[in-house]
Amino acid sequence: MNIDGRHYRTIWLAEDGVAVEVIDQTRLPHEFEVKRLTSLADAADAIRTMVVRGAPLIGVTAAYGLALAMREDASDEGIAQAVETLAATRPTAVNLRWALDRMAADLRRPAVNDRVAAAYRLAAEMADEDVATCRAIGEHGAALIRETHERTGRTVNVLTHCNAGWLATVDWGTALAPIYVAHDAGVPVHVWVDETRPRNQGAALTAFELGHHGVWHTILADNAGGHMMQHGQVDLCIVGSDRTTASGDVANKIGTYLKALAAHDNRVPFYAALPSSTIDWRLEDGVAEIPIEERSAREVTHMTGRADSGEIVTVEIASPGSPAANPAFDVTPARLVTGIITERGVAPASREGLASLFPDQAGRR
Amino acid sequence: MNIDGRHYRTIWLAEDGVAVEVIDQTRLPHEFEVKRLTSLADAADAIRTMVVRGAPLIGVTAAYGLALAMREDASDEGIAQAVETLAATRPTAVNLRWALDRMAADLRRPAVNDRVAAAYRLAAEMADEDVATCRAIGEHGAALIRETHERTGRTVNVLTHCNAGWLATVDWGTALAPIYVAHDAGVPVHVWVDETRPRNQGAALTAFELGHHGVWHTILADNAGGHMMQHGQVDLCIVGSDRTTASGDVANKIGTYLKALAAHDNRVPFYAALPSSTIDWRLEDGVAEIPIEERSAREVTHMTGRADSGEIVTVEIASPGSPAANPAFDVTPARLVTGIITERGVAPASREGLASLFPDQAGRR
Repeated sequence: MNIDGRHYRTIWLAEDGVAVEVIDQTRLPHEFEVKRLTSLADAADAIRTMVVRGAPLIGVTAAYGLALAMREDASDEGIAQAVETLAATRPTAVNLRWALDRMAADLRRPAVNDRVAAAYRLAAEMADEDVATCRAIGEHGAALIRETHERTGRTVNVLTHCNAGWLATVDWGTALAPIYVAHDAGVPVHVWVDETRPRNQGAALTAFELGHHGVWHTILADNAGGHMMQHGQVDLCIVGSDRTTASGDVANKIGTYLKALAAHDNRVPFYAALPSSTIDWRLEDGVAEIPIEERSAREVTHMTGRADSGEIVTVEIASPGSPAANPAFDVTPARLVTGIITERGVAPASREGLASLFPDQAGRR
Repeated sequence: MNIDGRHYRTIWLAEDGVAVEVIDQTRLPHEFEVKRLTSLADAADAIRTMVVRGAPLIGVTAAYGLALAMREDASDEGIAQAVETLAATRPTAVNLRWALDRMAADLRRPAVNDRVAAAYRLAAEMADEDVATCRAIGEHGAALIRETHERTGRTVNVLTHCNAGWLATVDWGTALAPIYVAHDAGVPVHVWVDETRPRNQGAALTAFELGHHGVWHTILADNAGGHMMQHGQVDLCIVGSDRTTASGDVANKIGTYLKALAAHDNRVPFYAALPSSTIDWRLEDGVAEIPIEERSAREVTHMTGRADSGEIVTVEIASPGSPAANPAFDVTPARLVTGIITERGVAPASREGLASLFPDQAGRR
């Protein structure tokens, strides 16, 4: 997407055709900096320290990390070691493992001397595939925004939670892709951006993305969305998903469930936008079956930002000594989800709905 | 309540019998400092700069401010001017106006020479009355916690939002009073403390109160409460109210409505604890009729805390240039409220329920 008129992906091959460049997301929103990755170690560090984040982007970064590794050692052992190094960076990221397994299988086929070129080609294909998937999600979701505009005749107010934007993918994003497609097509759209405590991905990343692409938006404390819906200020909600059950339950950033409840109570349509790779066809009951990552209490009790001096400072905001709990995700039951926006279209949030779009995948258990 | 074993109110007469002392709430949770008010100007400043906050405490501080003013000028004109000065400090605080009108009417009766003594007596009465009201709310609410403990045989998990504790009143608080009474009586209780963005009254003040009184508690991002309820981690919710309709709708800190929805969805009892002075008997439909204060965007985009250096620093946390909206309250419809805990007992959240406890007030329109 665009930053002040110039198009960017989150990851791309450098001009020398060897190094890989990424946007350093640890510096956002206060600094925009491109980081150059020239080795396996660089790529592993970038994932580990969250220079790159978001499941799809992590997967593609790992793929390029393997390409960089092949330049040092393209033997079968070299592949195995590089996979091990990269897999250890974020042990819970599903797409990371998926991307590594896929790359490793394909890389073992060509002769050792051809593996560097093959790895770069495969990584580029994976990046392009992610862009195409997100773009398709955007097209299908934008139709919902356009219909709303045509029905009401005014700017469409979309509420989103966390960052499921282009910064979490290679380009376009998932939940934000429909907004970008609609905006670029001239449909008037305004986005309510949930701050998304405790890591503030909404206020820091989603607001950054939308602002730099020129999309009208307003940040809200996570607490405010229900009030906005009570007063007719939200036309539809679109969120992402980190893991989706075959029955349409959606595990997404903590607090998503509360917005889904408010949407349901106020008859506001609530959509989850996701690539089919996040659907776990083995799962039926999300609340019971999806394990929820518990993260550090410090994410709740401390916060980082920019002081008036320009310095980036971390401050303690809670009463010292008070403990905090920090579940990172929650599960929104399918009964609260109006529809699921995928790369193949919009489906009802149900086993039948999802299976109708993905008959080739729905049998997998 | 207690701070590390020593009992405090939020406001008291100094040993000299003239000055008034308050806990400086702008310094909490990082510093505990007592501030001395010796003049009308001091009292007005304390309210304006939020050294004292919470509707009941603001009212009592204004009453003592009038007493301090009487020492300078106890004429009818002096009363009128002091009332004007104090009323201008927080124009939207309902209890401030109520306390001033009540004091002014009573102060005009005695001879000018007797007004200083009368003012101190009236302010002390108002403070004691607030304590008695909150204590009664605590007794009635504690019975609910005790019943839950007796039914389950284990620690009772109470979720609360914002700060409706003793720091918002003279002592005991409203939503926290039942917790203190239950805790002091030996009922095992654990409190989930909503951080309460954007002003963080939960993480900063409620956690401070509970921690220093020795009540077991854990801070949660506001986003996390629904997930906790889905997983059986919350036995009941107790929140305060800034304004309550005759029909039982509750206007409280932004985000309260989302927790009430989650409680309803998970069959967790949801109570509002409030003095009857917050019931506005003229109002029927809270969402339609209660005006919601819109506060500064800076409360959302910036945050203040303590840096590692010990310095108190304000940092920008949102993407620079992105606007924010900041509605300070929302309305929870009576249908989501299990009961209303008042100084006269617990009533259903309905016109009939409230009128049954307050037949003397319910006719007022």
